[in-house]
Amino acid sequence: MDYVYAPGRNHLFVPGPVNIPEPVIRAMNRNNEDYRSPAVPALTKTLLEDVKKIFKTTTGTPFLIPTTGTGAWESALTNTLSPGDRIVSFLIGQFSLLWIDQQQRLNFNVDVIESEWGQGANLDILASKLAADTAHTIKAICIVHNETATGVTNNLATVRKILDHYRHPALFLVDGVSSICALDFRMDEWGVDVALTGSQKALSLPTGMGIVCASPKALEASKSAKSVRVFFDWNDYLKFYKLGTFWPYTPSIQLLYGLRAALDLIFEEGLENVIERHSRLGKATRLAVEAWGLKNCTQKEEWFSDTVTAVVVPPYIDSSEIVRRAWKRYNLSLGLGLNKVAGKVFRIGHLGNLNELQLLGCLAGVEMILKDVGYPVKLGSGVAAACAYLQNNIPLIPSRI
Amino acid sequence: MDYVYAPGRNHLFVPGPVNIPEPVIRAMNRNNEDYRSPAVPALTKTLLEDVKKIFKTTTGTPFLIPTTGTGAWESALTNTLSPGDRIVSFLIGQFSLLWIDQQQRLNFNVDVIESEWGQGANLDILASKLAADTAHTIKAICIVHNETATGVTNNLATVRKILDHYRHPALFLVDGVSSICALDFRMDEWGVDVALTGSQKALSLPTGMGIVCASPKALEASKSAKSVRVFFDWNDYLKFYKLGTFWPYTPSIQLLYGLRAALDLIFEEGLENVIERHSRLGKATRLAVEAWGLKNCTQKEEWFSDTVTAVVVPPYIDSSEIVRRAWKRYNLSLGLGLNKVAGKVFRIGHLGNLNELQLLGCLAGVEMILKDVGYPVKLGSGVAAACAYLQNNIPLIPSRI
Amino acid sequence: MDYVYAPGRNHLFVPGPVNIPEPVIRAMNRNNEDYRSPAVPALTKTLLEDVKKIFKTTTGTPFLIPTTGTGAWESALTNTLSPGDRIVSFLIGQFSLLWIDQQQRLNFNVDVIESEWGQGANLDILASKLAADTAHTIKAICIVHNETATGVTNNLATVRKILDHYRHPALFLVDGVSSICALDFRMDEWGVDVALTGSQKALSLPTGMGIVCASPKALEASKSAKSVRVFFDWNDYLKFYKLGTFWPYTPSIQLLYGLRAALDLIFEEGLENVIERHSRLGKATRLAVEAWGLKNCTQKEEWFSDTVTAVVVPPYIDSSEIVRRAWKRYNLSLGLGLNKVAGKVFRIGHLGNLNELQLLGCLAGVEMILKDVGYPVKLGSGVAAACAYLQNNIPLIPSRI
Amino acid sequence: MDYVYAPGRNHLFVPGPVNIPEPVIRAMNRNNEDYRSPAVPALTKTLLEDVKKIFKTTTGTPFLIPTTGTGAWESALTNTLSPGDRIVSFLIGQFSLLWIDQQQRLNFNVDVIESEWGQGANLDILASKLAADTAHTIKAICIVHNETATGVTNNLATVRKILDHYRHPALFLVDGVSSICALDFRMDEWGVDVALTGSQKALSLPTGMGIVCASPKALEASKSAKSVRVFFDWNDYLKFYKLGTFWPYTPSIQLLYGLRAALDLIFEEGLENVIERHSRLGKATRLAVEAWGLKNCTQKEEWFSDTVTAVVVPPYIDSSEIVRRAWKRYNLSLGLGLNKVAGKVFRIGHLGNLNELQLLGCLAGVEMILKDVGYPVKLGSGVAAACAYLQNNIPLIPSRI
Repeated sequence: MDYVYAPGRNHLFVPGPVNIPEPVIRAMNRNNEDYRSPAVPALTKTLLEDVKKIFKTTTGTPFLIPTTGTGAWESALTNTLSPGDRIVSFLIGQFSLLWIDQQQRLNFNVDVIESEWGQGANLDILASKLAADTAHTIKAICIVHNETATGVTNNLATVRKILDHYRHPALFLVDGVSSICALDFRMDEWGVDVALTGSQKALSLPTGMGIVCASPKALEASKSAKSVRVFFDWNDYLKFYKLGTFWPYTPSIQLLYGLRAALDLIFEEGLENVIERHSRLGKATRLAVEAWGLKNCTQKEEWFSDTVTAVVVPPYIDSSEIVRRAWKRYNLSLGLGLNKVAGKVFRIGHLGNLNELQLLGCLAGVEMILKDVGYPVKLGSGVAAACAYLQNNIPLIPSRI
Repeated sequence: MDYVYAPGRNHLFVPGPVNIPEPVIRAMNRNNEDYRSPAVPALTKTLLEDVKKIFKTTTGTPFLIPTTGTGAWESALTNTLSPGDRIVSFLIGQFSLLWIDQQQRLNFNVDVIESEWGQGANLDILASKLAADTAHTIKAICIVHNETATGVTNNLATVRKILDHYRHPALFLVDGVSSICALDFRMDEWGVDVALTGSQKALSLPTGMGIVCASPKALEASKSAKSVRVFFDWNDYLKFYKLGTFWPYTPSIQLLYGLRAALDLIFEEGLENVIERHSRLGKATRLAVEAWGLKNCTQKEEWFSDTVTAVVVPPYIDSSEIVRRAWKRYNLSLGLGLNKVAGKVFRIGHLGNLNELQLLGCLAGVEMILKDVGYPVKLGSGVAAACAYLQNNIPLIPSRI
Repeated sequence: MDYVYAPGRNHLFVPGPVNIPEPVIRAMNRNNEDYRSPAVPALTKTLLEDVKKIFKTTTGTPFLIPTTGTGAWESALTNTLSPGDRIVSFLIGQFSLLWIDQQQRLNFNVDVIESEWGQGANLDILASKLAADTAHTIKAICIVHNETATGVTNNLATVRKILDHYRHPALFLVDGVSSICALDFRMDEWGVDVALTGSQKALSLPTGMGIVCASPKALEASKSAKSVRVFFDWNDYLKFYKLGTFWPYTPSIQLLYGLRAALDLIFEEGLENVIERHSRLGKATRLAVEAWGLKNCTQKEEWFSDTVTAVVVPPYIDSSEIVRRAWKRYNLSLGLGLNKVAGKVFRIGHLGNLNELQLLGCLAGVEMILKDVGYPVKLGSGVAAACAYLQNNIPLIPSRI
Repeated sequence: MDYVYAPGRNHLFVPGPVNIPEPVIRAMNRNNEDYRSPAVPALTKTLLEDVKKIFKTTTGTPFLIPTTGTGAWESALTNTLSPGDRIVSFLIGQFSLLWIDQQQRLNFNVDVIESEWGQGANLDILASKLAADTAHTIKAICIVHNETATGVTNNLATVRKILDHYRHPALFLVDGVSSICALDFRMDEWGVDVALTGSQKALSLPTGMGIVCASPKALEASKSAKSVRVFFDWNDYLKFYKLGTFWPYTPSIQLLYGLRAALDLIFEEGLENVIERHSRLGKATRLAVEAWGLKNCTQKEEWFSDTVTAVVVPPYIDSSEIVRRAWKRYNLSLGLGLNKVAGKVFRIGHLGNLNELQLLGCLAGVEMILKDVGYPVKLGSGVAAACAYLQNNIPLIPSRI
């Protein structure tokens, strides 16, 4: 059943799906259950309450949908918008591109603001568009918080400021797939109307649950949104929320228990500590890249991502060969460069249930691979740079003090 | 984490989700993996090939969609039909009703043929509609192979015969959620155009995978179908099938390995033996119901279901109380009566990875509950009737001869 | 890896190893750990404290030894006795016989009191031996609380009364392998000096942990006991107990976490409720046997065992054929007749994490097998008798009320 | 249940228990089974056959004993020797010391050859003792192949040569606990009479199985050995081997399936490749130690161990603080210095199912800890030295070429 066995652990450093912690694997190691018994609603109730904490919302309404991030996108859009609606969307990498493609296929009128890959969303253009839109034809702003393809984090607080500045009523829809539970994200404070993530990212679960959270304004919008939807219709969920049975169709019992365990671990570590840890992992990775003499695909520090780093390779190297070699020789899984940056970057995912020594093993591996493919790296240089920073910054593990 | 612990095994006899066999639980007990490595496509390829066998098709194209049965329905409809299309659909119970509701919300023009709950699809009316439809305005026939709410199995071979008789080109769309892998189902022979099931039914996996299989005619129809779809769009899958990477978005690694294990078990037992086993379990259950002096919700033998039996209780008993009591006192999970038959029937699911002694434990439990709620059952009577049949019909376990 | 796959659950009704509850399987589903870190001693401390509760002792000292019941026997004997010591031992079935064999091979002077298989220990002879032993040459009384081969439970309270009556100082050593955690057992109240069990019996864990509990008097005896021992030496444990690290050699991390989960489940159910449940299961089984017209191997009601029932078959039937057939046709695991009762009895184990409907499934299976092998059983008769009793006696599941 | 949770994987680098590979954890994730059914003997048969391959013996007889390494020692000694027998034993570290302690408590006449800790067995003294022993009073040579406390590997081929040179008939008993399945070990070629290991070492299983392999000469010796033994008696096993049922008492079903999976992985990788991998891991570790400017506890290259490296810290550092800090700050488990070298060395275990990037993560961690405790290490130096070697020597993973 394991077609490609290799000794020792697989070093999983793609930016999702990420490593599942053992307690979560254990929690999911179970038979099915009748989801109409009193047990499953009781469990679900705690999940719906607690999942709001990772969005930092008290007023939002969460939906735990048996789908992927792509489905979560569709849920966010179809429940709040009608065909023909004008929306502003930022194209900054492969995942924002895919979302835009979906928006277009769902028949919205997408006003695309494009940036060079490696740059963040151009918020100046957003500002001018909003300024010009006194008629409020723009119904929604769609933005990826963290573009997984390039390792670029957008500034959502600024988006909110701009919206407020122009008193623009557009909905604020955020793809938090590779950010929520890892980067600082504040749904209520930033006035986000729909935020979403996928179970296999920073929550460190298997794929299969799209988690969508809607503000009261988004719920209100859903009442008049004309996009056709059934499977993704929030209304079907809301009906069962009222009944206290919660599920319009069969949920994955295993993912529910897994989510319970995942949330418990996050709260035990403390969400702020989780975000701090990602900050350390991101910083350490970037220091290593710098020490190797390589460039970060992300062009400015303000956009640096703490969940994924896209490393630019010299023109004489094919980054796909690095990814292939990582897997074939070192049991290391790195992320490919996608689309425009295919062959030009490889990606190190550093999100989810991950610690510093795991990352250092990965960085040491990358150094050897760079040497393998003919890049004149000084072995140990990246690890040394990362360690110098980490040794000063890793806290004691609270439960072990 | 187990809010409602009770000693011993839970006796899971709802008609889905069903018991997961230990080898499948084991296969799924694993960390995430990079789905872009060569391993996952290699695995996927075997799954797509082998899953066709449970549909009995060689010409069909399967899709393993991260969704539930409801999503699989939506996939079947939106990929083959356009808004306004006239379709004929049979209303015979809660699940066909829900599918029809979806069909209407997706803006098809649904021509509903209703039967009393407990009866099968009225194929005479279908015949007259097809006869009248010389202009071929009917674009599709939608039918639930096995109505889970009433325990009614429709005769698909006859549907095909009628279609052929009138040389009607309508697509033939089948919900096989509670039939495929348990009842005799022949996609190619019966000329089914789209068939679908869910992982948590007879395949005995967790919820989370909708399995949809499309005939060449259905694939052809998808090229001109105008229903808006993105997440459920077959075309996105077909693009990646061509590339050999198979996945337009992240699949559940665990469900892929689980499906591999589930198929291996089914093939080890032999699909025909699996169907035979369900036939034995269904027959044994019906004999018990008869011995208890109770009526089967299914009104005629031709519609008897081998995967679920809906038992009608006397008017002075509330069937919900039976289900509640089963869970509260006997750690037995039975199916509620739904909608029109709420309070009037309870359901015994007997599908998936289940054997005769498990069923007999359930039947003994039902007898005690019937007594609990004041029905004058003769204890042991149902078990005796079931045993008399089973003792003559259970084969030796092939691997143990 | 599963050489002999059969669909559905295996019905495990041997009197050990028994079914492991899912929460325990989950708790054991883990990687190794450094047992010298602070975590493992912290866990061990809770185990040593809590395991005393299942022995009903506050003064005893428990040892969790990486061994089986046979090793636990050896630990009990070699730590308290010296070669040549006279001990009284009761031969009433295969397991008492094996223990006596061990006692003889360890060079004790074993004074065997034999009973017919199916009878309990002859305590009258014990009384006369103690009466005669004014010189206190008898150093220990060794008795199996529940003889697993014949389903005979001895009366330990009476043994204590006799010892007290004669003010005899002999040590009181008890094999509680198939009793502790299932039958009423009171170490302190009955003045038991060493009691022992194995993890795979009523505790419902995998095999691999012998649990031995020593009274202060037994610990005192261990200081002068001359039997050679190293692996089984309590003193090595006591040294590490004082250090607070607990382990003289490497324990199974998995079994420690498993034991934690198993104890948690037992305390959640309530030890008295666990014992009550076994009483119900035992009684129901005996009523079925009676209804079948078969005899219990146990000759008197006072010895009836609530953890295992040995059923006598008519002379024209080979009981081994029943066991073989159970496994080959019904995926049911029954216990063979051993030694003197080989071919004459088969055994139904009804201990550990087991509920009533599981047992009823087994009983229905036995009825069919009896018919298979030519015994004129009335199908349903045993199940009916068991149900009639159970339906009046099963309590509501406390967590579900 | 996880008292001391920390995010990410625990980095387990004690020299046992070691990391269990996922496929083995999966294989063990199962309910109990009746060990008297035909399935368990069928499985056991394959295990007994295949386990011989890891000892490199065709003539040996293996025993899979539900015990630890300490129990395996006792089994080796008591089955082959009689009280009072003169045996030669080498004291070179904590584990050889513990074995000698056991030998003395089992009443053998132990002729101890002591070396400084950090040196190997003094084979010159062995030679002179054998030369002098023309009367063959020496009944056995007991030697630890790899002393886990100091990281010293003894030369067993030379022991055999010396024995042969003096044509001495003494039995050759080898503790292979931290060598077998990781270091080159050749039972037949080296004329080893009893070799043993524990499941939690290089086999990468949980603790709980002592694996002992006896040569025909050892089996012969067992017939006249007078040491008292019951639980550890080979004869009880041999009786059941003849019957084909294999087990004198209940085995751990989970460990049997686990061993099957562990052997399958070892054979898939290839035993010689496994040994090569350990050689790489050992060499890389030693290069790092050297680069750090620290000394290996092992005094000469000929004794360097490829499974564990004991690193000597400067006198102003307490090595226990390094181990504590590793666990408290970095979720890294290192081995303590034991007994004579307590506080003076810490140990890096590099055995079992482990790959190079895992080791590099550990080495990076050790560098940070060294800095933490005030040792002036150059960060990255050890990793660089290890990488320089590894990058030249790691082969492609065969299954992925």
